[in-house]
Amino acid sequence: MGKIKFGILGGGGDSLIGILHRVASSMFDKYELVGGVFNVDYQENLKFAEQLDLSASRVYENLDTLIQKELALPESERMQVISILTPNFLHFPMAKSLLENGFNVICEKPMTTTFAEAEILHQTLQKAKTVFAVTYTYTGYPMIRQMKHMIKNGDLGEIQKVDAQYYQGWINPIIHDIEKRSSTWRLNPEKSGISCCIGDIGTHAFDMLEYVSGLKVESILADLNYLYSDNKMDIDGTVLLRCSNNVKGVICASQIATGEENSFVVKVYGKKAGLKWEQENPNYLYLMQDGKPLQVLKPGHEYNSDLSLDGTKLPPGHPEGIFDSMGNIYKGVAKAILKQPYNAAEFPTMIDGVRGMSFIEKAVESHTKGNVWVDIHNY
Amino acid sequence: MGKIKFGILGGGGDSLIGILHRVASSMFDKYELVGGVFNVDYQENLKFAEQLDLSASRVYENLDTLIQKELALPESERMQVISILTPNFLHFPMAKSLLENGFNVICEKPMTTTFAEAEILHQTLQKAKTVFAVTYTYTGYPMIRQMKHMIKNGDLGEIQKVDAQYYQGWINPIIHDIEKRSSTWRLNPEKSGISCCIGDIGTHAFDMLEYVSGLKVESILADLNYLYSDNKMDIDGTVLLRCSNNVKGVICASQIATGEENSFVVKVYGKKAGLKWEQENPNYLYLMQDGKPLQVLKPGHEYNSDLSLDGTKLPPGHPEGIFDSMGNIYKGVAKAILKQPYNAAEFPTMIDGVRGMSFIEKAVESHTKGNVWVDIHNY
Amino acid sequence: MGKIKFGILGGGGDSLIGILHRVASSMFDKYELVGGVFNVDYQENLKFAEQLDLSASRVYENLDTLIQKELALPESERMQVISILTPNFLHFPMAKSLLENGFNVICEKPMTTTFAEAEILHQTLQKAKTVFAVTYTYTGYPMIRQMKHMIKNGDLGEIQKVDAQYYQGWINPIIHDIEKRSSTWRLNPEKSGISCCIGDIGTHAFDMLEYVSGLKVESILADLNYLYSDNKMDIDGTVLLRCSNNVKGVICASQIATGEENSFVVKVYGKKAGLKWEQENPNYLYLMQDGKPLQVLKPGHEYNSDLSLDGTKLPPGHPEGIFDSMGNIYKGVAKAILKQPYNAAEFPTMIDGVRGMSFIEKAVESHTKGNVWVDIHNY
Amino acid sequence: MGKIKFGILGGGGDSLIGILHRVASSMFDKYELVGGVFNVDYQENLKFAEQLDLSASRVYENLDTLIQKELALPESERMQVISILTPNFLHFPMAKSLLENGFNVICEKPMTTTFAEAEILHQTLQKAKTVFAVTYTYTGYPMIRQMKHMIKNGDLGEIQKVDAQYYQGWINPIIHDIEKRSSTWRLNPEKSGISCCIGDIGTHAFDMLEYVSGLKVESILADLNYLYSDNKMDIDGTVLLRCSNNVKGVICASQIATGEENSFVVKVYGKKAGLKWEQENPNYLYLMQDGKPLQVLKPGHEYNSDLSLDGTKLPPGHPEGIFDSMGNIYKGVAKAILKQPYNAAEFPTMIDGVRGMSFIEKAVESHTKGNVWVDIHNY
Repeated sequence: MGKIKFGILGGGGDSLIGILHRVASSMFDKYELVGGVFNVDYQENLKFAEQLDLSASRVYENLDTLIQKELALPESERMQVISILTPNFLHFPMAKSLLENGFNVICEKPMTTTFAEAEILHQTLQKAKTVFAVTYTYTGYPMIRQMKHMIKNGDLGEIQKVDAQYYQGWINPIIHDIEKRSSTWRLNPEKSGISCCIGDIGTHAFDMLEYVSGLKVESILADLNYLYSDNKMDIDGTVLLRCSNNVKGVICASQIATGEENSFVVKVYGKKAGLKWEQENPNYLYLMQDGKPLQVLKPGHEYNSDLSLDGTKLPPGHPEGIFDSMGNIYKGVAKAILKQPYNAAEFPTMIDGVRGMSFIEKAVESHTKGNVWVDIHNY
Repeated sequence: MGKIKFGILGGGGDSLIGILHRVASSMFDKYELVGGVFNVDYQENLKFAEQLDLSASRVYENLDTLIQKELALPESERMQVISILTPNFLHFPMAKSLLENGFNVICEKPMTTTFAEAEILHQTLQKAKTVFAVTYTYTGYPMIRQMKHMIKNGDLGEIQKVDAQYYQGWINPIIHDIEKRSSTWRLNPEKSGISCCIGDIGTHAFDMLEYVSGLKVESILADLNYLYSDNKMDIDGTVLLRCSNNVKGVICASQIATGEENSFVVKVYGKKAGLKWEQENPNYLYLMQDGKPLQVLKPGHEYNSDLSLDGTKLPPGHPEGIFDSMGNIYKGVAKAILKQPYNAAEFPTMIDGVRGMSFIEKAVESHTKGNVWVDIHNY
Repeated sequence: MGKIKFGILGGGGDSLIGILHRVASSMFDKYELVGGVFNVDYQENLKFAEQLDLSASRVYENLDTLIQKELALPESERMQVISILTPNFLHFPMAKSLLENGFNVICEKPMTTTFAEAEILHQTLQKAKTVFAVTYTYTGYPMIRQMKHMIKNGDLGEIQKVDAQYYQGWINPIIHDIEKRSSTWRLNPEKSGISCCIGDIGTHAFDMLEYVSGLKVESILADLNYLYSDNKMDIDGTVLLRCSNNVKGVICASQIATGEENSFVVKVYGKKAGLKWEQENPNYLYLMQDGKPLQVLKPGHEYNSDLSLDGTKLPPGHPEGIFDSMGNIYKGVAKAILKQPYNAAEFPTMIDGVRGMSFIEKAVESHTKGNVWVDIHNY
Repeated sequence: MGKIKFGILGGGGDSLIGILHRVASSMFDKYELVGGVFNVDYQENLKFAEQLDLSASRVYENLDTLIQKELALPESERMQVISILTPNFLHFPMAKSLLENGFNVICEKPMTTTFAEAEILHQTLQKAKTVFAVTYTYTGYPMIRQMKHMIKNGDLGEIQKVDAQYYQGWINPIIHDIEKRSSTWRLNPEKSGISCCIGDIGTHAFDMLEYVSGLKVESILADLNYLYSDNKMDIDGTVLLRCSNNVKGVICASQIATGEENSFVVKVYGKKAGLKWEQENPNYLYLMQDGKPLQVLKPGHEYNSDLSLDGTKLPPGHPEGIFDSMGNIYKGVAKAILKQPYNAAEFPTMIDGVRGMSFIEKAVESHTKGNVWVDIHNY
C-alpha cells in the first residue's frame, strides 16, 4: 500500500538520464524517491537532494554506506529498488553489491562492460532471486509492445526476415577531429569497453529484434567501420544475422550517418504480413499485407493488446509529448510563483481564459443571428 | 530551495487529467504534491491519497475546509498553488474562492462556463495579484514556442493569413444515436455551457492563433453545425476571423470528422514565409519560404530559441514518448517487486543484458577475424 | 481501329499546358495529333509544327480556316476532337464555333469567363450533341476516382461534412509589389474575369467536392481577401458551403499561403468513415474509421474499383513519375544521337550495364564461397 | 529538325514496359515511333502496329529482317535508334546485332544474362561507336539528378557511408508454394540467369549508389537467402560494400519483405551532410546537416541544378502523376468519341464547367454583398 521506496545511484544535477528515470518513475504514482548517491562529491550530492526535497539522512556518501544504512532500517522504510545510472564501468560492481545484499535493481544499459562480467552478474542473480531490469528503454513503447503481441499472436505468420537500422550522426564532429577523437571517453576502450557504435546502439537493435520477434540471434558476421587508423572504436557497422528457425536478418548501425538524429527503424516480415516501426515517430505501427491497404495502428485504441494498452495513458491522437507540454506550463508557473524571471509566453494567463470565453459566446451569437460578423470583447 | 507545495482539486482515481497534471508537475522537480480534494466522496478521497502516499491530514472534505486549514498552517508549509481539475461548472466558484484567499491557481480550460463569470474572475485577480494560469496545454510544446518566437522575431514578415483546423471524430457514435445524444453531459447546455465543439476545441484553436501570431481576433462570423434539430449543441463549425492589422483567417473545428483523432493543425503565413505545425506530430515545425527548400525544425537543437529550448528535456531525435516508454518499464518492475501479476514483456531482464554483452563482443570478434560468422552465447 | 485524329488550339512553344495535353493524349495510344493552330503568329505556328513532324497542310492560320479546311476533308481524315488551350477569354468563342460545326471539344478550365457565356455554351452543346470535356485535371487521379467510388458505394455512410483546402503561395512576390500587381494579367479583371484565387483554384476545390461526394453545393457565403485597396482581384478566400442533403462544408483557398506549392487537400466525412486525399502525394488515399487502424489505399491494387484501376498503368509502388524518369533518359539519349551537348549523367551507359552484371555474378560468388569478400571487375 | 526515327523490339500488347517506353519517348516530342518487331507472332505484331497507326511496311517478322530492310532505306528515313524490350536472354544477341550494324541502342536492364556477354557487348560497342543506353530508370528522376549534382558539388563533403535498401514483397505468394516456385520463370536459372533478387533489384541499388555518389564499388561480401532448399534463386540478400576512397556501405535487397511495394531508399552520408531519397515519394530529397533544420528539396525550383531542372516539366507542387491524371481524362474522352462504353466519372463535362462559373460569380457576389448566403445556379 502506498508507493515503492526507491533509490538512485548517479543521475544528479542536469543529467538527462537522471531526469528520465525520475519522471518515468513518477508516471504511474508507484515509486517514491527516498534517497541515493547522486554524485561522487558528497556536497554536490546533498545540494542536489535538497533541490528534490529529500531528507539528508537518506543521501549517502557512497554505495557501501547506502547498503549498510539502508539494511539497518526497518524493512517497511528500506529502499526496495535501486536504479543504477552511473558511468558504464560502475554498473557491474554496483549491481553485484546490490544483488548480494538482496536489493531489487534497475540498471541502465549496457549492463556491464564485458560479457564475462555479465555472466558473473547472472550467476549472482540466480542466488539473489530479486527483480533485475535492464533499461532497454525502447521496449516500453506501446506500439512496440503491440508489435511483439501481434507477432506472438501469429498475425505475421512464420517470420522470414528481420531488419533493424539504427542511424545517428552525432559523432561526426568528433571523429574527424584528431584532438577530439583521442580525448572522448566514448572512443576510449578503457572507459567504454571494446565497442562504441555496436555497444551503444547496435545492442539496442539486437535486443529489440529479439524482443519483438521472439527469435534468438544465433550467429553473426560483422563488418565494422573505424574511419581512422588511430581510432580504436567502431563508429559504424553492419551485422549479418542468423536467427533461430533459420531466419536471416541484418542490423545496420551508424554514428556517422550525418544529420540523422536517432533514426531507429525496426522491420519484421512474416509469411503473411510485415510490421514496421520508427522510433522518431513512435506512435505509428505499420502493418503491411499483400494486396491489402496499408494499416497504421496507433496507441490507445481498443484494437491494441492489453500489453500495449497497459502502457498508454492518453486517448488516441494525443502524443505523449503532451505531458511535457503541460510540464512546461507548470515550469513557467513555478517560475512566476518563485518570482524568478520568466517569459510571458511560458503559460496562458487569465486574459487567455477571458478571451476564450468571449470567443465561444460570440461564435454562438454570430451563428444564431444568421452568420453575421460580431466583435470579440476587447481584453 | 526545495519544491513548491502543491494541491489539487479533482483528478482522483483514474482521471486522465489528474494523471496529466501530476506527471507534468513532477517533470522538472519543482512541485511537491501535498494534498487536496481529489474526490467529492471523502472516503474515496482518502483512499486515493493513500495510494499517493500523501498525509491524510492534508486531504480535505471540500474546498472550504482546505482553504481554512491551509491558511492556518505556517506559510512555509502551506500550499502555494492549487490546480483546479474539477468539472467545468466548478472552475469559476473554486477559482474565485482561491483567489480571494490569496492562493496561486492553475485552472483547466474552459476557465468558466460564461463570459460573465470570466469577467468577474478577472476582476478578482486584479485584487488578488497572485499567479493564475489556464492550461491551454498545447501552448507548452517546444515547437509552438519556437513558432511564436520566430513570428515575433519577424521571420515571417508581416502576417497575412492565419488558419487553424481542429478536427476530431469522437462524437460520431454519440450524435447519431438519439438516446446517447440526449443523455451525454457534453451535449447538455446545463452542464456544458452553450457550445460543445467551439467551446471545447474551437477555443484551443482561437487561443493558439493568438498565442503564436501575437495578433488579436477582433471580430468573427460563425457557421455552426448541429446535425439534428433536437441537438442543442454545435458539434462542428467554421469561424471566419478578422484580426488586428487587418489580417483575415479561419478556424475549422469538428467533432464529426469521422476517424480523425486529434488533428489540430496551425498555419500562419507572412509576407516572407509560412509556418505550419500539427499536434499529432508535435516535434516538427515546417518553415516554408518562397523558392527555398522546405525546412523542418525539431526540438532540442541550438537553432531554437531559448523559450523553446527551456521546454525541451531530451536531445534531438528522442520524442517525448520516451519518458512514457521508460515509465512503462518502471511500471512493470513495480508489479514484479509488489509480486503482482505481470507480463514478461513488461521489462527487459538480465538475460537481455547478458545477450547484449555477447552481441557486442561477438560483433567485434567477427570483424577482427575478417568478417566471419561467429556464434552468440546461448542464454 | 487506329487512333483518333486530334487537333490543338494554342499550346505552342514551351507552353506547359501544351506539353501536358500532348503527353496526356499520347498515354494510351488513342490519339494522333494531326494539326491545329498552335500560335497566333503563323510562322511560329509552322515552325513549331515542324518540330512535331506535323504536315504543314494541317497547320492553320486561325480557327476559321481550320474549321473550313477540316470540314472539306473526308470524314475519315478529319480532326475528330480539338483541344482548346488558348488564353481564357478565347475559350468561349472557340468552343462555340467548334460545337456549332460539329466537333468534339476538350476545353481547358475555366470553361468561359462568365456564367452567361457558360449558359450559352451549354445551350449550344444541347444542339451539337458532340462530346465536350472540361479539363479539371485532378479528377483523373486514380485515388480520386477510388474516393468517388467508395463514397458512391456507401463506404462512408451518409456524408456529414465536406472540406477542401487549396493553398498556394505563388502570388506573394507579385501582390506586395505595387508595380507587379498592377501589371499582372492574372490580377486584371479585363483579362481574367472577376476573380483570381476563387476563379483559378477555388473552382477546382468546388468541382472536386461535387465530383467525389456526389453532392451539389446549393448556396455559399464567401469572405474574400484582396490585401490592398488598389488590388481588384481576390487572392485568398474562405467559402462556407451548404450542400444537398443539408451537408455543410468549407472551401479554404489562398494564393498568399507563403511557401505552399500546390497544397490541395480534399476531405469527406460520413457517418461511418472519412476519406482524405492530398494532391501533392496523389497516390495515397486515407480511410479513417472510428476505432479502427487508419488504412492507406494506393493505386493499382485489386482492392480498388474498376474506375480507379482503369486509370492506373503501373504496378503498386511505382509512382507515375517513373514515366518522366524514363522520359528524361530518352531525352538524354536523343541529345547524344543528335550530337547535341549533354551531361554524362543523363543516361546510364554500357559501363553501367557491364558493372551491373559483375555485381550480380560476384554477389552469388561471395555467397557461394561462404560469405567472403570478392572483387568487382574493374570497368 | 523533326523527330528521331525510333523502333522497338518487344513491348507489344498490354506489356507495361512497352507502354513505359512509348510514353517516355513521346514526352519531349523528340521521337517518332516508326516500326519494329513487337511480337514473335507476326500476325499479332501487325495487329498491334495497326492500333498504333504504324505503317505495316515497317513492322518486321524478326530482327534480321528489320536490320536488312532498314539499312536498305535512305538514311533520312531509317530508324536511328532501337529499344530492346524483349525477355532478358534476348538482350545480348539483339544488342550485338544492332551495334554491329551501326544502330543506336536503348536496352532494358539487365543488359545481358552473364558478365561474359556484357564484356563482349562492350567490345562490340568500342568498334560501333554508336549511342548505347541501359535503362536503369530511376537515375532519370529529377531529385536523383539533384542528389548526384550536390554530391559532385561537394555539398556533403567527403563521402563516409553509402546505404541502399530495395525491399519488395511480391514473390511472397510464389515462394511459399512449391508448385509456383518451381514453375515461375523468375526462379528458373535457365531463363533468368543466376540470381533473382540481386539480379533484378539489387543491381538497381548498386547502379544507383555508384550513380549518385560517384564512387566505385570495389569489393563485396554477400549473404543471400533462398528460403527453401529446392529453390535455386536468391529472393533476398544483404551485400556489404567496400568502395573507392575506403568508403563502406551496404545494400539490403528483398522480395520477401511482405507487403512492401517498391521500397527503394538511397542514403549517402558525407563529412558535412547526408542525403536521403525514397523511390515511392520521388519528389522529396532530404538534406540532413548537423545542427541545422532538415531541408526538403523538391523538383522544379530554381535552387536545383541544371541537370535536375532539365528533367522537370512541371512547376513545383505538381507531381508527375498529373500527366497520368490528364491522360485518364483523355482516355475517357476517347471512349466517348468512339462510342465505347464509359463511366460518366471519366471526364468532367460542360455541366461541371457551367457550375464552376456559377461558383466563381456567386462567391464574389456573396463577398461584395457583405458575406451573405447566395445560391448556386441549379444545373
